Amino acid sequence: MCEGPENVRNIKLLLAYDGTDFFGWQRQPGGNTVQQAMESAIEVIAGVPYEVQGCSRTDSGVHALDYVCNFRTPGDGFASKSGAPIPLDRLPDALNANLPRSIAVTRAEEVGEDFHSRYSVTSKTYVYNILASRIRSPFLHSRAWRVGYPLDLGAMQECCSHFVGTHDFAAFMSSGSDPAQSTVRTVHRCGIAASPDTEGLLTFTVTANAFLYNMVRIMVGTVVMAGGGKIDPKDVPQIIESRNRQLAGVTAPPHGLFLKEVNL
Amino acid sequence: MCEGPENVRNIKLLLAYDGTDFFGWQRQPGGNTVQQAMESAIEVIAGVPYEVQGCSRTDSGVHALDYVCNFRTPGDGFASKSGAPIPLDRLPDALNANLPRSIAVTRAEEVGEDFHSRYSVTSKTYVYNILASRIRSPFLHSRAWRVGYPLDLGAMQECCSHFVGTHDFAAFMSSGSDPAQSTVRTVHRCGIAASPDTEGLLTFTVTANAFLYNMVRIMVGTVVMAGGGKIDPKDVPQIIESRNRQLAGVTAPPHGLFLKEVNL
Repeated sequence: MCEGPENVRNIKLLLAYDGTDFFGWQRQPGGNTVQQAMESAIEVIAGVPYEVQGCSRTDSGVHALDYVCNFRTPGDGFASKSGAPIPLDRLPDALNANLPRSIAVTRAEEVGEDFHSRYSVTSKTYVYNILASRIRSPFLHSRAWRVGYPLDLGAMQECCSHFVGTHDFAAFMSSGSDPAQSTVRTVHRCGIAASPDTEGLLTFTVTANAFLYNMVRIMVGTVVMAGGGKIDPKDVPQIIESRNRQLAGVTAPPHGLFLKEVNL
Repeated sequence: MCEGPENVRNIKLLLAYDGTDFFGWQRQPGGNTVQQAMESAIEVIAGVPYEVQGCSRTDSGVHALDYVCNFRTPGDGFASKSGAPIPLDRLPDALNANLPRSIAVTRAEEVGEDFHSRYSVTSKTYVYNILASRIRSPFLHSRAWRVGYPLDLGAMQECCSHFVGTHDFAAFMSSGSDPAQSTVRTVHRCGIAASPDTEGLLTFTVTANAFLYNMVRIMVGTVVMAGGGKIDPKDVPQIIESRNRQLAGVTAPPHGLFLKEVNL
């Protein structure tokens, strides 16, 4: 039987993962990454290697609630190594049985041939948990950045409002990024709110068409410095305009960050 | 200097802990328990052993949001082994520096001589997390009981309503309990609600003057069986009346259970 390249199915998967024990998404030599865990679970089932394309690199310790990835299978569908076809609605359970419990495949669906987890993205939403508390929480140590000094929520909200819109965010990008790429991004929504359930827990949310390297974490570092009185939120437009990384806040630690939603 | 028994201070501590890695509160030979962790943290600071009295045994894997315990120090106050006094408001930080991050001392205060963490309790509130989902969650695996079949929230709520009041709860007690003790308890409040934030997460809450061994977990097992159509919630009063453990539901696993509040 001869299979042309048109005879292929494109399978999209949604994942949730706790990034604490992973060196991020992207495959790396000797690294325990989510991509490697996914590819090896698929290979265990299928008996042959597959490449899984993710929607974004994520850093070590960063979590995901609805990560998007995809892989291509022969046109007669994804099958186990014994040749038995695995229907799409059985695929999440089959993969989860071969993944660590820090990863869950929550859905599998067939998408068009031209779908690409990275290039098809139109916007993404991240959330970032900040625990404003002098005392640590046994339940949030790998899921929130604990800040031990008082934070002014109003100042933080004002800071967030200045991020909304289309700006050159060069001041909010870690050095070492590709200098050739454009640093203009459009932030659709940005805000911060106190949790009704957990005392001291503040949740920052941002949606943008795309993000520069470490952009969310530097935004959060800036918001926290505004909350602590170390940056005047009124100065944020000037900090953006400066394109100077030195003027923005610290890079918040990775473990408070969650990729919440990917819009395609 | 001669110290009489009246020359003693009674220190109450509030704790939060993630019980995943502990064999419960109570000291046991070779066991990694919360009581042992607390006593060893105090001994590291003070240089001498102290006994810490807890408000309740908790089982392996059970968590606490506001656990109460107390210990007695000489009347001139708690001091480090160098003799430097440690003021009460510094005690949580001093202890937390010597505890695993799965335990946090959230508050320390001086209480009357007759205060006893166990006998002074007038009521306790527990919460229990149920994740109604065919797919596991990487974030809740040690904090919620995942039930893979559909649950009828209305039936579960009806079941909870039958627990309220003063009843003989012998049917909701694990065998092996002391047969001499009274099995009558007063449930002040009991209910279950869906989380507004996390899809599929149901939170059961119960407040009672006291609880029998495994009472909350058997109540939850019964509620889940009512939700799954295996028990008719209308039969719950009869199940209570029967005093027959065989008629109540399964014992829910420990890792969904949180001691939320202790009223003194």
